[in-house]
Amino acid sequence: MSGHAFDEAIALTPGSDGSWLGATSPAYANMVGPFGGITAAQALNAVLRHPQRLGEPVSLTVNFAAALADGPFTAQVRPARTNRSTQHWVVEVLQQGQTVLTATVFTALRRQTWSATEQAMPAATVPADTPLPAHAGRVEWFNRYEMRFVEGYFPAAWDGQDHGMSRTRLWVRDAPPRPLDFASLTALSDVFYPRIWRRRASPVPIGTVSMTVYFHAGAAQLQATGTGYLFAQAQAQAFHNGYFDQTAQLWNEAGELLVTTHQIVYYKE
Amino acid sequence: MSGHAFDEAIALTPGSDGSWLGATSPAYANMVGPFGGITAAQALNAVLRHPQRLGEPVSLTVNFAAALADGPFTAQVRPARTNRSTQHWVVEVLQQGQTVLTATVFTALRRQTWSATEQAMPAATVPADTPLPAHAGRVEWFNRYEMRFVEGYFPAAWDGQDHGMSRTRLWVRDAPPRPLDFASLTALSDVFYPRIWRRRASPVPIGTVSMTVYFHAGAAQLQATGTGYLFAQAQAQAFHNGYFDQTAQLWNEAGELLVTTHQIVYYKE
Repeated sequence: MSGHAFDEAIALTPGSDGSWLGATSPAYANMVGPFGGITAAQALNAVLRHPQRLGEPVSLTVNFAAALADGPFTAQVRPARTNRSTQHWVVEVLQQGQTVLTATVFTALRRQTWSATEQAMPAATVPADTPLPAHAGRVEWFNRYEMRFVEGYFPAAWDGQDHGMSRTRLWVRDAPPRPLDFASLTALSDVFYPRIWRRRASPVPIGTVSMTVYFHAGAAQLQATGTGYLFAQAQAQAFHNGYFDQTAQLWNEAGELLVTTHQIVYYKE
Repeated sequence: MSGHAFDEAIALTPGSDGSWLGATSPAYANMVGPFGGITAAQALNAVLRHPQRLGEPVSLTVNFAAALADGPFTAQVRPARTNRSTQHWVVEVLQQGQTVLTATVFTALRRQTWSATEQAMPAATVPADTPLPAHAGRVEWFNRYEMRFVEGYFPAAWDGQDHGMSRTRLWVRDAPPRPLDFASLTALSDVFYPRIWRRRASPVPIGTVSMTVYFHAGAAQLQATGTGYLFAQAQAQAFHNGYFDQTAQLWNEAGELLVTTHQIVYYKE
């Protein structure tokens, strides 16, 4: 037992019918309900812990169907298709018999092949020279991460000015540090504050609707990354009538692109 | 009835149990099985035609669990969660009782809000000045699209040289022209030939595993785009042990970003 808040948060116990039982974690509370990243990690964990799982996660899509209520949930997990070296999973998370999340996961036994990072890590100050924010986060989950912003910290003033771009870059890792794995990398993929807040300097209500994570690393590479920092970059490409997208990348300190991830986010005006 | 091959390809008839019956289309045949874009459009169409559908598609993720065999399929469609103005769908496509595709779709009634294209359309020659390829496609579905490559056409030689980048840019529309809608835009989101062929000048076996489409336009905007060209751009960010990603954008001639789309693709070496 690591005793780390993250491990406690994603813990699942087997239900009687093959489903998994979990609960939201106060340590990862957001403004309403839990941090989406921890919910995504819980959904992935239900696949990772499944006795029939084949290989490692390559792709994950999580759809947030409703804000989770604080308390227990049930995760139903089903291998929809098992091929020789790949597997397609369907996940549904329920509270009080209502669906609050749907997800699909693709796992595979990978073979070693020619590999390359085409999207290179941008040049940036090293983590030790990148200051921590002066204030603690206003929401609890923010305090579970060590974030050192290189560019695109929260706007200096919520003055509603259109900044014309939405990019944020930061060094990030779990706080306290915890060796990287697929579950924590999933949560880290959702670590960015809403792009519309950055773009318009206005903290409008938002909610992630769907998030996709592509893993470009295996377990050994994550283990080698260990408790090192990740360089994380996110930017929106379009804002349209209540929904904006976010495209993001996470590299390790060695410049290996571990994850590319995308989401579509509701915003209210 | 338009009589267009696309409409024939995505046609569905209601099954007795609420499912939809469709079939693969020879007009959109790929090397093995059908063009993935047409399969994705069929899956979306099963939601679009559902009597309980609320609003327009905002997000779609399609997982290709197995190569479709030529012939009929059944699409099972279920609204997993219906909120006041949004809806989460789960889709499963079967052949011979086996799952060949899973998908999730998010639909919503959109409200008009502040909107912006942050990822601007790159400068390019206009479609009329961008030549058509001299040869017909080697696979049938390629002939269903008018493609005018601006950059990153097929490598001049399959010499296995690492070109160091994988970007392709082209003007594209249905051939013959067909007014744009959500189904055709979904298929167009998969119109790019495999990024690893471009990057490494080597036509290795590939297969898309999962594809996500975010729609940044409503039906009226697609109608206004009509039979105009789309400017389409795709690039890989990472290649790792058998899987590479692709991130892509499709703008209309007015420079409006209609779709951002991503996929993860298996490759063999």
